[in-house]
Amino acid sequence: MRAYDIIWKKRNGGILSREEIEFFVRGYTAGGIPDYQAAALAMAIYFRGLEARETADLTMAMVYSGDRVDLGGIRGIKVDKHSTGGVGDTTTLVLVPLVAAAGAPVAKMSGRGLGHTGGTVDKLESIPGFKVSLEPMEFVEAVNRVGAAVVGQTGNMVPADKKLYALRDVTATIESVPLIASSVMSKKIAAGADAIVLDVKVGSGAFMKTPEAAFELARAMVDIGTMVGRRTVAVVTQMDQPLGYAVGNALEVREAIDTLKGEGPADLHELCLLLGAHMLQLAGVVADVQSGTERLQQVIAEGLAVAKFKEMIVSQSGDPAVVDRPELLPRASFTREVKAEQDGFVRSIDAQEVGLAAMMLGAGRETKEDHIDMSAGVVVGKKVGDRVQPGETLVTLHANRQEKLAEAEQRIRSAYRVGAERPSPPPLVYGVVTAEGVRRF
Amino acid sequence: MRAYDIIWKKRNGGILSREEIEFFVRGYTAGGIPDYQAAALAMAIYFRGLEARETADLTMAMVYSGDRVDLGGIRGIKVDKHSTGGVGDTTTLVLVPLVAAAGAPVAKMSGRGLGHTGGTVDKLESIPGFKVSLEPMEFVEAVNRVGAAVVGQTGNMVPADKKLYALRDVTATIESVPLIASSVMSKKIAAGADAIVLDVKVGSGAFMKTPEAAFELARAMVDIGTMVGRRTVAVVTQMDQPLGYAVGNALEVREAIDTLKGEGPADLHELCLLLGAHMLQLAGVVADVQSGTERLQQVIAEGLAVAKFKEMIVSQSGDPAVVDRPELLPRASFTREVKAEQDGFVRSIDAQEVGLAAMMLGAGRETKEDHIDMSAGVVVGKKVGDRVQPGETLVTLHANRQEKLAEAEQRIRSAYRVGAERPSPPPLVYGVVTAEGVRRF
Repeated sequence: MRAYDIIWKKRNGGILSREEIEFFVRGYTAGGIPDYQAAALAMAIYFRGLEARETADLTMAMVYSGDRVDLGGIRGIKVDKHSTGGVGDTTTLVLVPLVAAAGAPVAKMSGRGLGHTGGTVDKLESIPGFKVSLEPMEFVEAVNRVGAAVVGQTGNMVPADKKLYALRDVTATIESVPLIASSVMSKKIAAGADAIVLDVKVGSGAFMKTPEAAFELARAMVDIGTMVGRRTVAVVTQMDQPLGYAVGNALEVREAIDTLKGEGPADLHELCLLLGAHMLQLAGVVADVQSGTERLQQVIAEGLAVAKFKEMIVSQSGDPAVVDRPELLPRASFTREVKAEQDGFVRSIDAQEVGLAAMMLGAGRETKEDHIDMSAGVVVGKKVGDRVQPGETLVTLHANRQEKLAEAEQRIRSAYRVGAERPSPPPLVYGVVTAEGVRRF
Repeated sequence: MRAYDIIWKKRNGGILSREEIEFFVRGYTAGGIPDYQAAALAMAIYFRGLEARETADLTMAMVYSGDRVDLGGIRGIKVDKHSTGGVGDTTTLVLVPLVAAAGAPVAKMSGRGLGHTGGTVDKLESIPGFKVSLEPMEFVEAVNRVGAAVVGQTGNMVPADKKLYALRDVTATIESVPLIASSVMSKKIAAGADAIVLDVKVGSGAFMKTPEAAFELARAMVDIGTMVGRRTVAVVTQMDQPLGYAVGNALEVREAIDTLKGEGPADLHELCLLLGAHMLQLAGVVADVQSGTERLQQVIAEGLAVAKFKEMIVSQSGDPAVVDRPELLPRASFTREVKAEQDGFVRSIDAQEVGLAAMMLGAGRETKEDHIDMSAGVVVGKKVGDRVQPGETLVTLHANRQEKLAEAEQRIRSAYRVGAERPSPPPLVYGVVTAEGVRRF
């Protein structure tokens, strides 16, 4: 078998066999197949696509390129949740304790990554004492004891995906649905998931700009899950404006606490109920999504959700006092309110720009070496459809670097469109994709 | 400007500017742009193509990536000739003295290359004493004195093409018409051609397998020439069976001498007249192709062509006695006649297989390090349409390595198809492409 022949076959629209895909992934990971051949294959795949079977084979070949997490010691069906990325996406912080409180084990491994804010592990580290580096045995024990744990990624997981993603990033081959789908799914499967709930974001603040593109990606990922024996559900959701109010690490932890208490932003609350209900269904805890939603509403109302969060914080050496007294979380030295200058309704908010403003204030990493400022970020005061009057606060900026505030304010101002007419409220959820089919809302 | 953006633009079907093409070629040649980005761009070009203007810009960017031959010291219009490769293609050996004898200066720079036989300079080196390494000044003086000279490639010519071609060869991106066209034309232009006659081969022994593909390539190359001010004509010719009889270095020199004397194979003779007439027309020596053909017939008939070859051999330190006594050329220790086993007509000869048999006997190089056996090769006895009877010689093998004869004979046998019906004779020329249009024969 030769790498050349595999590129040639795909270039000509051929269907690659499992053996060919494994040969290429193994060779590329080991270094025997050079970057230039992988770049040529990635571009050929960009144009020719991959069938569902090829995509599933690529996914599993990447899973087997490195270490796999063994969650066999945890009782029950382990459901993982993944978001394709957005702005102010606090759902994972909420869902981990929420779903655990409702009876499904949640063993979450999360990366730090680059972005407008840190990853879930970064956010949790804003809680004094919180430890995300557990040994594998501690991780399993913590989930069995508490029902939930979140740890940072360790070991050499999916090195093939790491290498291929970095290459795609510099060869204009990111935007390939089968390549994106296999990249996401390989990481979830390597992290030990039995079943997976995907939140596929669409809109100005998301990678997928149109619902059609998002449904296509959702379909590809659900197909992979189905073919490799991991029940998978994808929810396609709107990311035209930030989700919830907070974009920042400690700021989002605070918002997650509010949401677990039943006092969070409506959109974040609603999305967590939907994603969580699907997680409970896949975990076999409830029979259908409706029952799952009711169960989650109940655990919030009874205070069990926020109690589970406290329990999880204690289990990972953090200070649970932050749950009742969020002011114990890191706070920025400076705040600035960006105030409305005109009368009208918020017609749109460019989520991407809001995210960049938060990153500029120190909430996220542009490069791996960047230090995250836990207290920095933005809190949105007015969302799409809200009435605003001159002098009212659109957004509050939080920063320790005062000199960044002016530029961040400019970004926020450019992100907001205010007009005389009240816009029709944007839908939060476009639809759900399961192995059985697509349901559009 | 970033390489990434250029790949992205082409991937999306955009048209690259001259600045973008020059930036990429310069960066790639210098090493600042890595192989993997060039591979991704090549694959994107494979799928999206290049417009005529982009192809011309790529050609000139490659020309300016290295040294250029200055033929300014040679009087007259310098017409170069290029063949896209075939089996037993002795035309250049014939055309250099033939066209010079008819009054056009021929300053030929030729590579050694890989293939069934050596390149033109290898073939000429089978003449005792013949020297192909002339200094630039000697080269110019030789052409001015004799009218013709052939030298090996020197200096750092079109390094961008060398690097890109080697990369395309391992990334399944050779088969792109604009990339093939720019590669060929960049080398001719860097070698100092004022005008170019192209022999685009089509058939089993050629890179282009169909007349349509060959005409497309011909059109692309003529367009480049026209856009960069080099008058270019492309002749699309048949390569379903070897051209002439000989495939080998000294064997082809001998056949070239026969042809210059007017005693060569009919197809080789006819093709040399057609290509040569176009060269004379582009050189401004004759007004039209018809006059060119007559002029060439005349110089052959009057013995001027073969006399010019002698003169050229003397000018490059070779022994001109080979012209009258071809037995002075290197001769192989062993010959074997491959004899027909059945009665009928030669229906087809797989040129590719015949070429591989010659290479196996030592006539060509598989890798740059291979040594060429000047005397080895094959001489075809029966061509398509010829009547054969059992015991008649189909092909004579020439080799110094007796142990290779049996395998070569097998290849020859598998290349020949003999049947009861006489096939209609294959056309030698499919048509001619010029700046003015396409004329199909």
